[in-house]
Amino acid sequence: MSTQSIRPVKVKRKYTRSSPGSVLYQSGDTIVLCTASIEDGVPPWLAGSGKGWVTAEYNMLPHSTNRRKRRDRDGKVDGRTTEIQRLIGRSLRAVVDLERLGERMVTVDCDVLQADGGTRTASITGGFLALADALYPEFRKTPPAEHPLRDSIAAISVGIVNGKPTLDLDYEKDFAAAVDMNVVMTGKGQFVEIQGTGEEATFDDDELAALIKLAKAGIKQLTKIQQESLGKQWPLA
Amino acid sequence: MSTQSIRPVKVKRKYTRSSPGSVLYQSGDTIVLCTASIEDGVPPWLAGSGKGWVTAEYNMLPHSTNRRKRRDRDGKVDGRTTEIQRLIGRSLRAVVDLERLGERMVTVDCDVLQADGGTRTASITGGFLALADALYPEFRKTPPAEHPLRDSIAAISVGIVNGKPTLDLDYEKDFAAAVDMNVVMTGKGQFVEIQGTGEEATFDDDELAALIKLAKAGIKQLTKIQQESLGKQWPLA
Amino acid sequence: MSTQSIRPVKVKRKYTRSSPGSVLYQSGDTIVLCTASIEDGVPPWLAGSGKGWVTAEYNMLPHSTNRRKRRDRDGKVDGRTTEIQRLIGRSLRAVVDLERLGERMVTVDCDVLQADGGTRTASITGGFLALADALYPEFRKTPPAEHPLRDSIAAISVGIVNGKPTLDLDYEKDFAAAVDMNVVMTGKGQFVEIQGTGEEATFDDDELAALIKLAKAGIKQLTKIQQESLGKQWPLA
Amino acid sequence: MSTQSIRPVKVKRKYTRSSPGSVLYQSGDTIVLCTASIEDGVPPWLAGSGKGWVTAEYNMLPHSTNRRKRRDRDGKVDGRTTEIQRLIGRSLRAVVDLERLGERMVTVDCDVLQADGGTRTASITGGFLALADALYPEFRKTPPAEHPLRDSIAAISVGIVNGKPTLDLDYEKDFAAAVDMNVVMTGKGQFVEIQGTGEEATFDDDELAALIKLAKAGIKQLTKIQQESLGKQWPLA
Amino acid sequence: MSTQSIRPVKVKRKYTRSSPGSVLYQSGDTIVLCTASIEDGVPPWLAGSGKGWVTAEYNMLPHSTNRRKRRDRDGKVDGRTTEIQRLIGRSLRAVVDLERLGERMVTVDCDVLQADGGTRTASITGGFLALADALYPEFRKTPPAEHPLRDSIAAISVGIVNGKPTLDLDYEKDFAAAVDMNVVMTGKGQFVEIQGTGEEATFDDDELAALIKLAKAGIKQLTKIQQESLGKQWPLA
Amino acid sequence: MSTQSIRPVKVKRKYTRSSPGSVLYQSGDTIVLCTASIEDGVPPWLAGSGKGWVTAEYNMLPHSTNRRKRRDRDGKVDGRTTEIQRLIGRSLRAVVDLERLGERMVTVDCDVLQADGGTRTASITGGFLALADALYPEFRKTPPAEHPLRDSIAAISVGIVNGKPTLDLDYEKDFAAAVDMNVVMTGKGQFVEIQGTGEEATFDDDELAALIKLAKAGIKQLTKIQQESLGKQWPLA
Repeated sequence: MSTQSIRPVKVKRKYTRSSPGSVLYQSGDTIVLCTASIEDGVPPWLAGSGKGWVTAEYNMLPHSTNRRKRRDRDGKVDGRTTEIQRLIGRSLRAVVDLERLGERMVTVDCDVLQADGGTRTASITGGFLALADALYPEFRKTPPAEHPLRDSIAAISVGIVNGKPTLDLDYEKDFAAAVDMNVVMTGKGQFVEIQGTGEEATFDDDELAALIKLAKAGIKQLTKIQQESLGKQWPLA
Repeated sequence: MSTQSIRPVKVKRKYTRSSPGSVLYQSGDTIVLCTASIEDGVPPWLAGSGKGWVTAEYNMLPHSTNRRKRRDRDGKVDGRTTEIQRLIGRSLRAVVDLERLGERMVTVDCDVLQADGGTRTASITGGFLALADALYPEFRKTPPAEHPLRDSIAAISVGIVNGKPTLDLDYEKDFAAAVDMNVVMTGKGQFVEIQGTGEEATFDDDELAALIKLAKAGIKQLTKIQQESLGKQWPLA
Repeated sequence: MSTQSIRPVKVKRKYTRSSPGSVLYQSGDTIVLCTASIEDGVPPWLAGSGKGWVTAEYNMLPHSTNRRKRRDRDGKVDGRTTEIQRLIGRSLRAVVDLERLGERMVTVDCDVLQADGGTRTASITGGFLALADALYPEFRKTPPAEHPLRDSIAAISVGIVNGKPTLDLDYEKDFAAAVDMNVVMTGKGQFVEIQGTGEEATFDDDELAALIKLAKAGIKQLTKIQQESLGKQWPLA
Repeated sequence: MSTQSIRPVKVKRKYTRSSPGSVLYQSGDTIVLCTASIEDGVPPWLAGSGKGWVTAEYNMLPHSTNRRKRRDRDGKVDGRTTEIQRLIGRSLRAVVDLERLGERMVTVDCDVLQADGGTRTASITGGFLALADALYPEFRKTPPAEHPLRDSIAAISVGIVNGKPTLDLDYEKDFAAAVDMNVVMTGKGQFVEIQGTGEEATFDDDELAALIKLAKAGIKQLTKIQQESLGKQWPLA
Repeated sequence: MSTQSIRPVKVKRKYTRSSPGSVLYQSGDTIVLCTASIEDGVPPWLAGSGKGWVTAEYNMLPHSTNRRKRRDRDGKVDGRTTEIQRLIGRSLRAVVDLERLGERMVTVDCDVLQADGGTRTASITGGFLALADALYPEFRKTPPAEHPLRDSIAAISVGIVNGKPTLDLDYEKDFAAAVDMNVVMTGKGQFVEIQGTGEEATFDDDELAALIKLAKAGIKQLTKIQQESLGKQWPLA
Repeated sequence: MSTQSIRPVKVKRKYTRSSPGSVLYQSGDTIVLCTASIEDGVPPWLAGSGKGWVTAEYNMLPHSTNRRKRRDRDGKVDGRTTEIQRLIGRSLRAVVDLERLGERMVTVDCDVLQADGGTRTASITGGFLALADALYPEFRKTPPAEHPLRDSIAAISVGIVNGKPTLDLDYEKDFAAAVDMNVVMTGKGQFVEIQGTGEEATFDDDELAALIKLAKAGIKQLTKIQQESLGKQWPLA
C-alpha cells in the first residue's frame, strides 16, 4: 500500500439514538464510536465564568485488539489512555470558542471498537463530527460569527518506516516506525498539536520537514471528508 | 405494542475482526456488542484441574443512555454491573461442559452501545452466539457428544406492568413494572435462572405462574432466532 | 437431618446497647449480628422528597469461616457481598412505607460471626427484627395504619440436593445442591424475591413448584418465630 | 466509680466454632470478639527463614459506637485503625518466640462489637487468650522450654482525668483525659510498650511516675484473670 | 561515637521560596525538608468553631534510603507513614493555641531527602521551625500572650543498644536497639509524647528511667539550637 | 529578561549519599532533585531478553508551588504527572543502549522542590546527569563503543509569548504563552521529542520553524553545561 495516501474512511453519523452526536468513524480497520452530549453547567473551577468546557474520554473495548485488553476498572487508568484523552480534549477545544459555548459542558466519548493503528487521530477526526452534531440543535440558528465552532479539526499520524516518511500508520507500520508523529490541524491549515517521538531512535531537520509536509496533505483530505459528511451543516454559512 | 410478544431482534455476527466471536445483538432499541475470545490457561484456582472457565464482563458505554453514565474507572464497579456480569457468566457456564472445554478460558464481553431495557438478557442471548463463534474454530471437528457446548441459552425479562403480565420490557415498561423477572432457559427448555423481584411491591402464586409461562414462550422464539443465525453451526449435528 | 424442616433458630434482641436495634440471630450454626440505627436525613437523591430510605450492609467476619476470609479493605467489595447486601436492603424496603418513614435513613448492618450456610436469608430474617426495634422508639405511638412497617419479612433457602427438594440448606447441603433458591416473603405470604440458580445444572417446572412450596412452609415458621420474639410489639395492634 | 480499679472483665472462650481461638472479651461495656487461627506458611519476606509470624487486625463494627461508623471499605483504612492493629500485633509478638513457632502464620482478629473506651487494650488482653487457644492444639505436648509462648501479655490504659491519675478509662473518662497512656506488659512484669500522649496538654516527671505505677497494678489484675481463664493450659507447667 | 550526645545538627531556613516556612533540617546524615504554609479555612468538622488546625504530612523520597523505596501512589499509605505523620501533627499542635490561631489551617510537609535514623524526630524538630516561620508574617505584631505559639517543641530518639541506654539513634543503632523510644518535649521541659517499644524485647523500670533522663538532656540541646536558629523571632519577647 | 537566552543553571552532583546518582538541578527558580539507582533484574516483560530498562518518576513536592499541591496518595496519579514521567523515561531511554545495559533496571526520580516553569525539561536535563552518575561505577572501565550511554540528552521549552518566539519559559511566560513546545535533543543535535501545543491557539509553518531554531540554540548551551559538570566522565573518551 502507498506510503503517501490515507486509508479509506467511512463515516456513519447518528449511529445510536441515545446521544445527540453519535458517529461511527472507520479508518482502514480502525473503528471508533465517537459520541457526544451537551449538558448545562461546567466543572467547579469554571462556574460563574460564563465559559463552557469540552472534555473527552478515550477507551479501547477489551476485544478491540487481537489480544484482549483488560478494562480500566481498578482505579488506574493507564498512562497511555490518560495522554490520549487529554490530547483529544485539547484538540477539540482548539476550535471551540468556550465563551460562545456559554456555561455548558460537552463530553465526547471515543470508544475504540477495533484498533489497527491511529486510534487517537481517528478519535479526534471522528470526535469533531460528533461534537458538531451535539452542538447543532442548540446553535442551528446562531450566526457563524457567534457560533462556538470556529473551525474544523482533524488529525493524522505520520512516521519514518523503513527509512521512508509514511502517512497514516496502521498497526503494523506503527510498530515498525523509527519515528512516530501525530499532527493535529484545523480545517484552515493551522497547527494545533505536533507530537513527534523517536522510538529508540532520533530524527533530523530534513526528516522533520518531510513528516510535516506529509501530514498537511493527509489532513487536507480528512478535512474534505468531514465537510462532505456534515453536508449543509458545514461550513457554517 | 403487544404485551405478549418479543421485540424485533437483529443479529450481526462477525461484526469486528479482532475477536473470534463478535456479535452485534439488537433487541428493539437495545444494542449490545458481544465479543468473545478463548485463550489457553485458567484462573489459578482451576490450574491443574483439567477444567476450563467461562467468564463475562458487562459494561454500558457512557452514551448508551440518554443521560451520560460515568465510566467505572474509579476502582468501584457498581453493584448493578457486578450482579449482571455474574449472572451472564453463570448463565453461559450452564451450557458449557467445563471438562470438555479443557484448561481454556473464554471471556465474553458485553458492551452496551444503546440501552432501552433488557440489556442483561440481550447480553446472555447475544453472548451465547459470540461464545459459539469463539469455540467454533477450535472444536469444529469435535463430535457433538464431546463438544463443550451442551445446549443453547437465552434470556428474557417479564414483569407485571399496570397489573398485567408483560413480555420483554423496554425501558419505559421496566420503569413502570411492579414486579420484574429475568428468566434464563436453555434451548431444550430447562430453567437456569429465575430472578423475580417486587419493586416496592409483592406478588402471589398466580402472578408467578403467569410470568413463568410468558417467559417460556419468549425464550422459545429467541432460541429459534439463535438457531437461524448460527445456521449450519447449530445445532451440533 | 430432615430435608423438610428449618434449622433451630435462636434470637437475642438488645444484644449490644450501642444501637437501638441489635439482634443476635442464630440459625443452626449460622450466627449473624444484625444491628440497626435510624438517623435524620436521607441520601442526596431523596432530599426534599419527604421519603425515607432503608439500606443494608453485609459482612462476614474473617474468622466466620473455617478458612479465614480477608477483610474487604482494599476498596473492592467482592461481587457476592454486593449482591447480598443489595438483596437484604431491597427485601427490607419491601415492607417499609418510605413515605410514612419520612426523611429518615435506617441502616441495617448484618455481620456474620459464624457461617454455616444461609447467611443472607438469616440476615433478612434477623435484620427485620433489628429494623423493628430501631423503629420502635420513634413510632411506638403511631397507629398501625400510619406506621412505616406494613408487614414482616423473612427469607429461607431451598434447593435440590441429591435429587431431592430440601429446605434451609446448611453449608454442606448448599455445596451439594444442584439447584439453589432463595425466597423472600412477607408475613402475609406474598413473594418479594425469588432467586433460583442452577449451579452447573438446570431445573424444570415440577422442581420449581416443589421448591416454592417448601419455601413457603419454611417462611411460615420463621414468621411465627419473629412474632413471638417481638411479643407485644408485633403485630402492630 | 473508683479511679484506682479496673472495670469488671468477662471472658467467654470458644465463642464461635469456626476458629480455633475465639474469645468474647468484655471489659465494662467494651466488648471485643478476638479470634485467632494458625496456618502453614509465612509472608514472602520470612519464607525460608524458619521463623513464623503473628499479625493482628482490628476493626470496629459499624454499630459498636453510638453514632454508626462507616466500614473501611473504600481502600483507606483510617490512621487510627492502622496504628492500633500494628500495636496489637507488636504486643502479641513480644511474647512469642517466632523461631519456635516455625514457618506458621497466626492471625488474630479483634472485632469490636461495642466500644466504651479501651478497645485497643482489650484487644491485646483478649487477643492473647485467642492466641493461646489457637496455638494449643498444635503445641499441647511441647515442653514449656520449647513452646512458642514465652509469657502472657496484657494491656491497660491510664490517664490524667480532672488532674487525677486514673486507671482503665472508659469512653467518658478518655474523652475528659488531659493525658492518655497505654501500657503493655508481660505477665512477668516487663514493659513492652508505653505510649503516652498529652492531648493538647503536657505532663511532667511526677505524673509520668504515677501513671506507670497505676498501670502496673492494673496489668497485674488482668494477668490473674487471664491465668484463671486459661486454667490448666496456663502457665505452661 | 558517644552514646550520650546528639548528632551534629544543621539548619537552613528559607530553603525554598515557594512556601513561607521552608527549613532544610539535617541531623547527622538524616536530611528532612520541612515546609509549612498557612491558609484560611479549616476542615469541615471545625468550621464555625473559631479554632484553627495544624496538620502534617510525612514522606520519604524514593532514593532517601539505600534501597529505593516505592512511592505511596497506589492509594495505600503504609502504616508506618500514617503513624509518623499523626505523631508529627499531634506534637506540633501541642504548642499551638488553636483558638488564637483562628480559623486557619497550617500544613507542615516533612519530606525526607536522606534517611539515617530519627526521621520522625527530625521532622518534629525541623517542622517546628517551619511552623514558626509560616506563622511569623501573620502574627509578627501579636503580643506573646496572644500569639498562637505557646512554646517550642523538639523530639529525640533514645534506645537500649547493646545493653546500654543510647541517645539519638542513627540507622545502624536503631537497627541494633532492643528498646526504642521517641520522646517529644516542649522547650519548657514538659512531656508531650513518650513512645517506647520493646522490639522483640522488654524493659524494666530502671531502663525506663535511664532512657527518659537521656532524652531530656538531648531535647535541651535541640531546644537551644532551635532558639539560636530563630534568633530574634524566638522566644516571643 | 531576554527571550533568547536560557535561565541560569546550577548543578550540584552527589547531593545526597543514599543514591549513586543524586543531582540537585536548578534552572532559574526551578529546582529539581534528580536521583538515580541501578539494580539487577528487569520488569517481567523483559525478563530473559538480555535487555535492560530505564524508567522515571516525576513528582512535585506539595510546597513546590505557591499554592500547596496535594500529594498523589489516593491512588490516582494525575494525568499531567503521568504524561511527564512517560516523557522523561522515553527521553532518557533514547540515549541508552538497552542491550549494552544488560538486564539491569535504572530508576530516575525527579522530585521538584521548587517549580517556576520548565520542570519537565529540567527533569530530563538533570535526570541525564543522575543517570550518568548511576551508571558510572558499573561501567567506568567499559570502552565507549560498548558503553550503554550513546549520547547525552537535554530538553528545553520554547513558546510564543506576546507574539514572540521565546526560549526557556518560566511560570509567568508559560502561563502567557499562546503556543508551548518542549523539545528534547541529544548532545549530537538529533531530535528525540517535539511536543508543540497551541493553548487555545494555533500556529503556522513560520512560527514552527522559529521555535525549533530557538530550541536548538538552547539545547546546545545545556549540553555544554552537562559536559562541564560531568568533567572527565564525559564525553566517553
